Amino acid sequence: MPHRSTVHEVLTAVFQVRDFDGRPELAVLLWQRALDPQKSTWSLPGGQLCDHEDLITSARRLLAEKVDVREVAHLEQLSVFSDPARVPGDRRIASTFLGLIPLPSDPHLPPDTAWHPVSALPEMSFDHGVVVEHARARLAAKLSYTNIAFALAPAEFAMSTLREIYCAALGYQVDATNLQRVLGRRGVLTPTGTTAPSGKAGGRPPALYRFAESRLRVTDEFAALRPPS
Amino acid sequence: MPHRSTVHEVLTAVFQVRDFDGRPELAVLLWQRALDPQKSTWSLPGGQLCDHEDLITSARRLLAEKVDVREVAHLEQLSVFSDPARVPGDRRIASTFLGLIPLPSDPHLPPDTAWHPVSALPEMSFDHGVVVEHARARLAAKLSYTNIAFALAPAEFAMSTLREIYCAALGYQVDATNLQRVLGRRGVLTPTGTTAPSGKAGGRPPALYRFAESRLRVTDEFAALRPPS
Repeated sequence: MPHRSTVHEVLTAVFQVRDFDGRPELAVLLWQRALDPQKSTWSLPGGQLCDHEDLITSARRLLAEKVDVREVAHLEQLSVFSDPARVPGDRRIASTFLGLIPLPSDPHLPPDTAWHPVSALPEMSFDHGVVVEHARARLAAKLSYTNIAFALAPAEFAMSTLREIYCAALGYQVDATNLQRVLGRRGVLTPTGTTAPSGKAGGRPPALYRFAESRLRVTDEFAALRPPS
Repeated sequence: MPHRSTVHEVLTAVFQVRDFDGRPELAVLLWQRALDPQKSTWSLPGGQLCDHEDLITSARRLLAEKVDVREVAHLEQLSVFSDPARVPGDRRIASTFLGLIPLPSDPHLPPDTAWHPVSALPEMSFDHGVVVEHARARLAAKLSYTNIAFALAPAEFAMSTLREIYCAALGYQVDATNLQRVLGRRGVLTPTGTTAPSGKAGGRPPALYRFAESRLRVTDEFAALRPPS
């Protein structure tokens, strides 16, 4: 039976691919603590679960209240962080979420809040750095077997843009031709039939694509295991 | 700020492929409530998270205490069930787990506990039926992109046995040749170099296989997205 007081909190790692000095990088939304404990360290947006709400309702409310983010294209539950010693004082059990914001959305942020590249996090509060890494790993895994990139990409894009998004989210280079071939074969992308205004180097204007669906779908069901159709 | 008292509970859907009237089926471990609320309905094993333990420690403890199950080959966190109205009385936030028991293990069960086919659940308590369906869906998804079947299969097996396990867990027929080809290509299975004592119909004794690893691994990383090696 628990005797120590326990709080249930919700924390969300909100990711977007953003430009840092001309380089697209996976960025995470953090706010800086003005007070102790751990004054000046950076935290994930979140707060306490309320009586009347379930976790996803709470995650959406807290993003709107705390960092003024109202539009996430994808929001999914990650693990619960339940180490009894994860924060000082009352026990805080943290349900964590992954939130994705598409390009070119640019939410207006409060003064204590900023985007940071996931590859160069500032000093993080408590176990929030571990939560960011967990969220990044989930995103990378889902890029390989789902259409989750719809929630990071603009509505229409050239393959070079989609490749930049994949590279930024994965943290390593991927080949655009191979990416297009695999996503095409899996029915993830649809050509819009139009082209961008002009090619980067003044060459042929690149073809534009969009995601066939804007809901998460497992795209590579193992052929042997598909249910009979 | 929460005012109603809140309890954090842990529930585990423990699955094993078991024989029901000569037919292998995915089975789930349930216990029957002797008292109200919802007397006589069937519940997942679980209970309250203790102060000093994290969730997975709690899940293992509760399986040992409540249903005398001490050996699960795989245990993973599923979603949190947090609807404020999911149970009457105090609010109970349920962290749920998927547990898998390999063949031919046959844990000794207390008298109120029994295996039930997932395809024909008895009257379930609260939202426990939804948790079972959620766990089954996670298992089916992971069968398609991971080696998770290691946690249901015996240490060594003929392909016909592995096929039965896949069919039972997925709830539809899969083709043994195709299964062997795909799992072989992904490096999931290793031939033991030996054969079973005799073929089913007195034919050629079938070759035996084992899983190359007994830890969960994503087996179909999308070729275009593999990190540079």
